[in-house]
Amino acid sequence: MNSLLVGIVAVSDRAAQGIYADEGGPALTRKCKEFGWSVQAEAIVPDDRERIQSAIRAFAAQGCELILTTGGTGIAARDVTPEAIRGIMRIEIPGFGELMRAESYKLTPNGILSRSLAAVVDSSLVVALPGKPQGAVDCLTIVAGAIPHAVKLCRGQPTSC
Amino acid sequence: MNSLLVGIVAVSDRAAQGIYADEGGPALTRKCKEFGWSVQAEAIVPDDRERIQSAIRAFAAQGCELILTTGGTGIAARDVTPEAIRGIMRIEIPGFGELMRAESYKLTPNGILSRSLAAVVDSSLVVALPGKPQGAVDCLTIVAGAIPHAVKLCRGQPTSC
Amino acid sequence: MNSLLVGIVAVSDRAAQGIYADEGGPALTRKCKEFGWSVQAEAIVPDDRERIQSAIRAFAAQGCELILTTGGTGIAARDVTPEAIRGIMRIEIPGFGELMRAESYKLTPNGILSRSLAAVVDSSLVVALPGKPQGAVDCLTIVAGAIPHAVKLCRGQPTSC
Repeated sequence: MNSLLVGIVAVSDRAAQGIYADEGGPALTRKCKEFGWSVQAEAIVPDDRERIQSAIRAFAAQGCELILTTGGTGIAARDVTPEAIRGIMRIEIPGFGELMRAESYKLTPNGILSRSLAAVVDSSLVVALPGKPQGAVDCLTIVAGAIPHAVKLCRGQPTSC
Repeated sequence: MNSLLVGIVAVSDRAAQGIYADEGGPALTRKCKEFGWSVQAEAIVPDDRERIQSAIRAFAAQGCELILTTGGTGIAARDVTPEAIRGIMRIEIPGFGELMRAESYKLTPNGILSRSLAAVVDSSLVVALPGKPQGAVDCLTIVAGAIPHAVKLCRGQPTSC
Repeated sequence: MNSLLVGIVAVSDRAAQGIYADEGGPALTRKCKEFGWSVQAEAIVPDDRERIQSAIRAFAAQGCELILTTGGTGIAARDVTPEAIRGIMRIEIPGFGELMRAESYKLTPNGILSRSLAAVVDSSLVVALPGKPQGAVDCLTIVAGAIPHAVKLCRGQPTSC
């Protein structure tokens, strides 16, 4: 695989309203560049199921092979990113969330409160990361090793595995 | 957080019929006191979906911030506690079950047979623990570190995280 | 428990068409014999939801206490074994998939891409394993310690636990 084409969706009511600047999206963009991946598209949307779904589908249609979201994976009433993704996915890939939680737990017991997940939407891999910039980058790093192969499978490319 | 307000629901056909005394509920009550939590309400119900749901909802309405169940999380036909909770929850919090199983597995391979889980019902945190008193106390201890923060989020309280 | 009665279902479009010989089924058969289990029935079916379901139900009706499938647990569009099993199961047992992924991850980051799972169908335990022969055998070995007790519970036999 050469450079992976990435879209990043920051999910936050307050950032979408301009109350403060989103930091999760830029932090993920920097990390993707470190991995040699190419960030093609970025968006900030409120914690709204349909707005999240529209952004993901638009990025998939634009050819983003990997779509990262940051925010809305907690357990508060406003956190609806998992439900948004489950509403449009073909399948969930449970190992991403399991691994992110198991590794985060080593840093803090509250790591088990995250509902981070990965799923296949259209032919794109979607990985939903926490909202805090450091948490988002840490969780992306935890699962990064499986992303290139997952993207190939999502796009229906033949693989040696 | 000061003292957490706790409700405990023992789920057991035989204990509900008075065939033997429930030991899971009292064991959890003792453990909660050790943690400095305040047990406000206790109930024993049979392995019946609606009876389990009614007990949880009643305790939530009474102001229990944390509701612990013990029993009915196995894989036998009578074990319906997970289905009862899923029928009334807003969201499941998958990391609780994952962590309880991963830690229990270190003690016995049969630890992976547990369907223990946590969920948010109304604005209470519900944690479903195994039926054996020692297993229930062990599993509660495994996840206890994440409970205070989870309860705050369930109640919509502002947090520093 | 004396000898466990086992059925094995190899799920593969190409093996079902005779394009190549299935190797996953024979590899699992050899491993079951090592465990002292008795393989009663074997089948090869295409990656088709209804064909997978029919094979599992037929083996359950024949008295197979444990039904192993190999193949169709990945994330490609043709991988439908998890959906086939979920369509006929009474309950899923999440700890099997969690443990298989956590242990596979230690060998390769791509281990988290597996959607391996276990479920109770009728009164049989069904464990869905990866398609590669070595992966199937490795994953079976990872969870083998919990299988005898799980089978007893599925069949409604009284146990000391």
